[in-house]
Parts: sequence; C-alpha cells; structure tokens
Amino acid sequence: MRIVHIKQNGKAVLAARCGDELIDINKVSSDLGTNLVDILAGGKLASLADKLASAGADAVVSGSYTYLSPVEQPGKIICVGLNYADHAKESPYDRPDYPVLFLRVATSLVPHGEPLIAPKCSEQFDYEGEMVAIIGKGGRHIARDKALEHVAGYSVFNEGSVRDYQFKSPQWTSGKNFDGSGGFGPDFVTADELPPGGKGLKIVTRLNGETVQEANTDDMLFPVDEIIAVASEVMTLEAGDVLVLGTPAGVGAFRKPPLWMKDGDVCEVEVEKICCLSNPVKAEA
Amino acid sequence: MRIVHIKQNGKAVLAARCGDELIDINKVSSDLGTNLVDILAGGKLASLADKLASAGADAVVSGSYTYLSPVEQPGKIICVGLNYADHAKESPYDRPDYPVLFLRVATSLVPHGEPLIAPKCSEQFDYEGEMVAIIGKGGRHIARDKALEHVAGYSVFNEGSVRDYQFKSPQWTSGKNFDGSGGFGPDFVTADELPPGGKGLKIVTRLNGETVQEANTDDMLFPVDEIIAVASEVMTLEAGDVLVLGTPAGVGAFRKPPLWMKDGDVCEVEVEKICCLSNPVKAEA
Repeated sequence: MRIVHIKQNGKAVLAARCGDELIDINKVSSDLGTNLVDILAGGKLASLADKLASAGADAVVSGSYTYLSPVEQPGKIICVGLNYADHAKESPYDRPDYPVLFLRVATSLVPHGEPLIAPKCSEQFDYEGEMVAIIGKGGRHIARDKALEHVAGYSVFNEGSVRDYQFKSPQWTSGKNFDGSGGFGPDFVTADELPPGGKGLKIVTRLNGETVQEANTDDMLFPVDEIIAVASEVMTLEAGDVLVLGTPAGVGAFRKPPLWMKDGDVCEVEVEKICCLSNPVKAEA
Repeated sequence: MRIVHIKQNGKAVLAARCGDELIDINKVSSDLGTNLVDILAGGKLASLADKLASAGADAVVSGSYTYLSPVEQPGKIICVGLNYADHAKESPYDRPDYPVLFLRVATSLVPHGEPLIAPKCSEQFDYEGEMVAIIGKGGRHIARDKALEHVAGYSVFNEGSVRDYQFKSPQWTSGKNFDGSGGFGPDFVTADELPPGGKGLKIVTRLNGETVQEANTDDMLFPVDEIIAVASEVMTLEAGDVLVLGTPAGVGAFRKPPLWMKDGDVCEVEVEKICCLSNPVKAEA
C-alpha cells in the first residue's frame, strides 16, 4: 500500500495511491482520520487495505492538489549521520562504532514538489538523499530481531544541510534544522511491499538531472533494525516517529570544488521501489 | 502569574497558583483549554490574568494532585550546551563563540515530583540545573532587541544527562534523551514577574540537600535574547517551544571523583523567583 498526504482546496486529505489514481481514505472509511499517525497509532493499516479493495468510483480524488509531508508533526525525527562508509570516509569524522544520532524539528520539513529554501545567510546549502523508516508500533528496549515489526513503512528524504552552520559548533543542530531544508515524501510505502529492512534498494540523488549520489541501502553501516534497537535503548519510540537513515558519499560539501544547491535548481532523491522525491530550490525571500 | 499543569483524578488541569491556592483555569473561563500551548498560541495570557482576578471560591482546586510538565508536547525543546563560562571550562570543549544548540524530545520529560529514571545501561546519570524560557509569540528572524517580546515566561529544568551515552558519538543526542531524564517545572512564571531576560537570578542545584551547582543567570555566555535571535535565524520558533538555557559548573561528570545520581537520591534545581524543581531518582526497573 502507498499512502500520500495531499492538500486540496485548502484541506488535508490522506489518500492511497492505486495505480494512477488516488483514493480518498476518508471516503472509504470515515473512522480513519486524515492523519497517518492516527492510522499507525490505531493499528489500522491492515483494515485500511481491506477497505480500499472495495472502494467505489466516488472515492477517487479528482482535480489538482499539492503534497503535504507524509507525517507533518512527527513526535521525533531521528537522523543518522555518517551511516554509509564512503560518506563517513569523505567527511572529517571517523567511521562510527555507535550510530551518530541527531534530531530534526518539524518546522524544517518540506513536502514533495514544494521548494527547498536556500537560506540567505549562507551559500552552503547541500543535499543529502536518504531512505526513511516510519515507526508503526511504538516501544522501548526493542530487540534487534523484533525491530522490523515496529516499522510501518518507508519513505524518502532530502536531508538538506547548511554546512557552515552545521559546523559552527560541535553539535550539528543549526545546520540541520533550517526552515524548508528537509524534503520528505511523497509516498509512504508499507513495509510489506519492500524487502525486509528496506535492504538492497538503489538510492540516487540528482541535482538538475545529474547524478550526484548513487548507492545501495545495503551499504548502510547501521541498518534499520539496529538503529531501532539503539534508539529505543535510549527513548520510547512512538507511532509516526521518523527515522532518517543517512546519506551515501557524494554530498556537495566534500567535492572539489564544492557543489551547493541554489535558486532555480531541482533536486531529486529516488529510492528504488519507494518513490522519487523532487523539489525545486528557491532562494529565501 | 504562575501557571501549573497538574493531574487530578486522571484528568489534566491547568491551574494558576495564587498564594497557597491553585485556581482551576477551566472553571474561570471555559474557552482557554487545559493546555498552556493553546493559551500562548491564542495570545490569551493577558485575558486569563483579568479573569483570575474575579475567580470564585468554586474554582479553587481541592484534593490531591500530581504535577505534569508545564508543556507536555513542545514543538521543540532547544537546549544550549556550554552556556556558562565555568562549565565550558570544566568540560573538554572550547568556550563557544556560537551557541551550542541541541534538541531534546518530549519522551524525555519528567514532571516535578516524579522520578528521574537512572537507566540500567549506565551508571553515569548526571544532573544539570537550568533556567527555561518558553516562547509565547512565534517568529523567524527575530531581532535580538525584540527577542524578549517573544518570551511568555520562565521555568526550571534538570537536564539529566547520561554521560557515557552522550559521548559515544560526536552528537550528544543519545545521552540527552533518555526516557525520564529531563525534569521540568513545576511553575511557569510569566515574564512580567521577573527581571527582563530572567537576568540576575540565583540558580542552585542540590543533590540530597547538598549544593552541587551555584551560579547566577547573569553568567550565561549567551543570554535568552541572543539565543532567540540565533535560533530564529535558523528556524521558526512557535508558541510553546521550550529553550533550556544551559548549566553552570559543578556537574557530576567533571568532579574528581565523579558524582552520579542513583536510586534513592533527590535532586533539586531552584531558580530564584521562579520555582524549585524537585525529583527523586529511581533506578530503571
């Protein structure tokens, strides 16, 4: 199942993507809400699949719409730094032996199709293509061999980073949390449609059509199940929490000369079998 | 005005502390909600003050209650590391020239009176007494000379840190986000009752009655207005966002020998004119 969160006539609509059509989930079942977190927290993904099978023609979304982030207000956005060996190697950091976790806030999110905002205070706005796992069943102290049972599905992220701000202090927070820096979506794909742990998927980032990152999710140093075990040793994971799983080599900052995103660019991140996230880049007004 | 968030008979109640009494805000006015964020986002603090002045005896809270965090689900919890010169000096880090910002998640919060949880995976559970500013009016690119207009009020935090986990990676996230590690409250004190920027207030941390940190909020390297200007250059601040403003010297990790919080301890953080936050420490089950 593929779920997207869209806005039509000023209203948020949760919809299932069925071939070329979008099915309005609220018209299929009135008790599911318009929010992916509610569906996940309520354990209603399975019943949604049943109901979609018998959706009528009146549930098909018609007319134009724009996208919203698959989860708009996640309780947590946990990002994993240096999670591909070749990216750790191009960076000034050592290859980690414990996952490098950092947090994003929801104000940094940008839906598919909406502009990533190149901030006026910096010229160093960089792309980072990443796969995302979204928690379905929450928990604490989740064992690694049970961890994938807690993943509801997967999506795609462009973890846009303002490099000079990232390195202004020992903590990366500022550079990772600019408004309009984190592209997210468009599709949430349920875990049953993908290989376990989202393994073996090609991940590609293109800037203005040119491939700038290309790798396979198999290359992650810490795969999804291990990230869940490590994070949940520390904190309770909850339905709708978003795990942004790290980027491969090829970011702009470590190129010679560096390559930055700027007004008028288009940046795409595609993860095989999940979706292609595309965002124009716009200079901050 | 002092506002507390309490739980009575399983129900959350927002109350104003008036002398020795608590006044149930919902019994004073039905349109204010039970949530501090709603009051702040709605710009209703001033009208609340008016209504409290005419509260009847039936609005007084009677019977026992426990505390909740002043804000339970902040959109952001932005913490400032190394924000007192003497603490930066005792740490392995340089004195910062840009604020060291890091984030906490809401699952780490503990109300006044409830136990801080010493995790079973570590013996290095440390205290950090801090003053908190809570955003009333949100904004982006807030100029420093207007920044205090965006602070609704102040509170107190014990920014409990699991030191070995904090330093397992270059990013402090894990050690700063254990469930039950962040004491918060009890009182939210409106800005008009305190010196501008919460300046000149004595801040003291006591472990089992013994003073372990003692400083003045004047000693902050980056005062509240500067933190707001710096953070809002990066991200939109919103009503209810929590700024945890850093801890002075005296943390347990840098003592010789180190001093850790353990089961049965009581840790108090008191900021003059705001409140005294007290939490027992309990070993994780």
